[in-house]
Amino acid sequence: MQIRAVVWGENVHEQTNEVVAGIYPDGIHGAIAAALNQDAGISATTATLQEAEHGLPEARLAETDVLLWWGHAAHGDVDDAVVERVAEHVWSGMGLIALHSSHFSKIFKRLMGTPCSLTWREAGERERIWVTTPGHPIAEGLPDHFELDHEEMYGEPFRVPEPLETVFIGWFQGGEVFRAGLTYRRGCGQIFYFQPGHETYPTYHDATVQQVLRNAVRWAHNPAQRLADVTDAPNRPVDAALEPIEEKGPKLHKPGEAGFR
Amino acid sequence: MQIRAVVWGENVHEQTNEVVAGIYPDGIHGAIAAALNQDAGISATTATLQEAEHGLPEARLAETDVLLWWGHAAHGDVDDAVVERVAEHVWSGMGLIALHSSHFSKIFKRLMGTPCSLTWREAGERERIWVTTPGHPIAEGLPDHFELDHEEMYGEPFRVPEPLETVFIGWFQGGEVFRAGLTYRRGCGQIFYFQPGHETYPTYHDATVQQVLRNAVRWAHNPAQRLADVTDAPNRPVDAALEPIEEKGPKLHKPGEAGFR
Amino acid sequence: MQIRAVVWGENVHEQTNEVVAGIYPDGIHGAIAAALNQDAGISATTATLQEAEHGLPEARLAETDVLLWWGHAAHGDVDDAVVERVAEHVWSGMGLIALHSSHFSKIFKRLMGTPCSLTWREAGERERIWVTTPGHPIAEGLPDHFELDHEEMYGEPFRVPEPLETVFIGWFQGGEVFRAGLTYRRGCGQIFYFQPGHETYPTYHDATVQQVLRNAVRWAHNPAQRLADVTDAPNRPVDAALEPIEEKGPKLHKPGEAGFR
Amino acid sequence: MQIRAVVWGENVHEQTNEVVAGIYPDGIHGAIAAALNQDAGISATTATLQEAEHGLPEARLAETDVLLWWGHAAHGDVDDAVVERVAEHVWSGMGLIALHSSHFSKIFKRLMGTPCSLTWREAGERERIWVTTPGHPIAEGLPDHFELDHEEMYGEPFRVPEPLETVFIGWFQGGEVFRAGLTYRRGCGQIFYFQPGHETYPTYHDATVQQVLRNAVRWAHNPAQRLADVTDAPNRPVDAALEPIEEKGPKLHKPGEAGFR
Repeated sequence: MQIRAVVWGENVHEQTNEVVAGIYPDGIHGAIAAALNQDAGISATTATLQEAEHGLPEARLAETDVLLWWGHAAHGDVDDAVVERVAEHVWSGMGLIALHSSHFSKIFKRLMGTPCSLTWREAGERERIWVTTPGHPIAEGLPDHFELDHEEMYGEPFRVPEPLETVFIGWFQGGEVFRAGLTYRRGCGQIFYFQPGHETYPTYHDATVQQVLRNAVRWAHNPAQRLADVTDAPNRPVDAALEPIEEKGPKLHKPGEAGFR
Repeated sequence: MQIRAVVWGENVHEQTNEVVAGIYPDGIHGAIAAALNQDAGISATTATLQEAEHGLPEARLAETDVLLWWGHAAHGDVDDAVVERVAEHVWSGMGLIALHSSHFSKIFKRLMGTPCSLTWREAGERERIWVTTPGHPIAEGLPDHFELDHEEMYGEPFRVPEPLETVFIGWFQGGEVFRAGLTYRRGCGQIFYFQPGHETYPTYHDATVQQVLRNAVRWAHNPAQRLADVTDAPNRPVDAALEPIEEKGPKLHKPGEAGFR
Repeated sequence: MQIRAVVWGENVHEQTNEVVAGIYPDGIHGAIAAALNQDAGISATTATLQEAEHGLPEARLAETDVLLWWGHAAHGDVDDAVVERVAEHVWSGMGLIALHSSHFSKIFKRLMGTPCSLTWREAGERERIWVTTPGHPIAEGLPDHFELDHEEMYGEPFRVPEPLETVFIGWFQGGEVFRAGLTYRRGCGQIFYFQPGHETYPTYHDATVQQVLRNAVRWAHNPAQRLADVTDAPNRPVDAALEPIEEKGPKLHKPGEAGFR
Repeated sequence: MQIRAVVWGENVHEQTNEVVAGIYPDGIHGAIAAALNQDAGISATTATLQEAEHGLPEARLAETDVLLWWGHAAHGDVDDAVVERVAEHVWSGMGLIALHSSHFSKIFKRLMGTPCSLTWREAGERERIWVTTPGHPIAEGLPDHFELDHEEMYGEPFRVPEPLETVFIGWFQGGEVFRAGLTYRRGCGQIFYFQPGHETYPTYHDATVQQVLRNAVRWAHNPAQRLADVTDAPNRPVDAALEPIEEKGPKLHKPGEAGFR
């Protein structure tokens, strides 16, 4: 069975900026989805900010294995309810891949619990990305490093939590470094942040970048059934305790009462 | 110089429940602050939900090294603006210790990015807490385990991110286990979650629990100056690059323009 | 293509103890291999201490995707050269699953860099194992907990490095807890430690334990080509630098000279 | 009370190479110890390969809070018994700071459980070290980055376990990156690896490098009493169980018998 990927694109620059429209006539999301679909094991479609519920209604998320997210100019326009819905699906097992300027997306910041800020420079400089965790599924088939002739500089400190794994580190011509590929788990959901992808450069047409994205989709896919009720805090009543216990001491809650939250 | 700790208490059960009022006549927060003040290196005061800005105006947080948080029945009454203010101070270097039912507090969930749910049972059963990381500053001076005759059961799965360190694991008489002490860093701020502390039991009068709290305050204290502007994403202009680079390729941003967010 | 698993058994108790021989007539290794072979995607064979090179010559390891290890009474009899060979294969991408008393095996201690000690009691008591990371591939298809009527108690502190992930925690009837399932990566190799499996109890005949082992083999399998030369420290000569640099300052090494080690 | 630091120096290049002797007339170890002693809270002495037991007899390690290690040309000459003794002290609570080419020292490899290999180039090129974890005690008082005009290039992949924290990342003029500052805990001991320090450059005379070393000594210091018996696996007999249990099932061990190892 194919992995069902949805590539979410903000789709603003593509509509308003000729350079971006020229590089990505089908949108950044369209280019990424096409790259993913080169893998017969992945079935990728797109969703955009402008669609109803940003193209991410409950029914669609329920059938999404991995969500990729590219946003930049319109982070603030994303509906909080959709953000929370996406977060719940991640906690329940949906994979999430946050791309480039999505470090500042509501959903990524929501899941990290940190500012996710960084330094930046738009100078078309060279970036060289090094694999720091050879053998990691996301780096499968990659050389020890690869280069992008033009990329936006993203610099440390990248204010995210200490990751599970640092997969890539980027070297920038202007003198900065950046943790370009980081993994996290939030609940049952695997999360990957991948730094390259400035809208005015053809980054997502790069063969190695495309390979990383395909690898990341496979890695982020959790084949287990989506978990329900991850935000619930179920009471385990005394008479159903796994070991025999007797109730002791004063109680705040009456039998059957739900907990506070 | 003393470490300045503020113990934040929801202060609801103490006002409405005779049992809790009997155990904690000065409030849960008052008992904890008194326990901290037994350490000459700590100066602890209290703040409560009912005060203006919940007792946590900007000026006070700026002079707080470590904030301890106990909430339960009124998580939803905590002003979102105060939550965000506390989060920013944590990112900037303030320590945070989340206690017991504060697993569901807005501030803890905000910083974790997960549901922070668990299972529970209020049966006054015995908990035995094991030190899993001997030698950790939070466990300093502790035996290999300690017992609480009456505690609320909190059970796994505890839906939090994988911690930096698992310091304690609790064994419950009724058959459950729980990661009772976990550390995180969010930005410059050290975070410790500590599970014991149900309001109808005298947990915070327990000498070992008090020692853990004092240890945790010392551990969570970051002596470095509070960092400013952690949510900023500063541009590093081309002409100020650390290595000489020439601008190439198309640009989205005009010189001096702020980034999107 | 099937995942090639090798189950290494010390095969001492099975030869010398009637109880163990009765429970595991084909050896502990034999029982585990049979359990793995119930998964059509896994092809499991066995190797034992008594074979030449303990059944783990270079050629065989080169064709092993995941190695499972059960040892207890004869850790000291394992040849250091074989241990080092196994370590190198792990670093190069072979998965390793260390079972029960193999916490004290040479190979596990070698890869952890810690004493790997713990407390223990052989009383046939009940263990209840809780899933702490629902949604983890190793926990796929499992209930929130499962029980073993008779298990040897292993207690904290378990002196291992902080893991990548804590997948299981065990509750023991006698009052202890133990991190029963832990993941690590060492080089390109995925490592899983799984605590149950005392030789005088039928643990490896338990259906849930068998499911965990099959899951773990699938998780530990790294499909990437085995990496060569992971212990090499290659020189990158100045004239082959990725960015043009000029040699400056005094040198210790002559051109083409290997580094010290 | 002062933190007792011992700076271990291999002391070979200083005796055999004029350049190194010129930069470090008191040895690399001497220069580092002098830098540490600028902090009134630290009392640093030195030990060298050439001394009896390499200057690290049991009695001295017992009075050492933090050990710094610089080795390069003579890793193989370090006695395995001394390595094991140092490892046990780390597990018991002694801090360890491994410097530069000590990535290949026996003690560092012993504690990591990985090859600890990397790529390298001796070209005197510029390195710029970025702080990736602002607010970390090891980075206290540091700017967001600092530069070394001449350093040996160390490049990724650095084959070490995923660290607890990545504190520094280095940018090299020739195009490589390296995780220049990493933290680990092994048992009760804090470990810090710090990459700069090639013998033919005056790295340890750099004020910022010296500040990092002083910070690291303070961070690595564990004030708790050195733990004994960390390699023991104590039996907890049935009649001393914390919860009443009855012995069940067959046993391998006789009462009072030690476990296998």
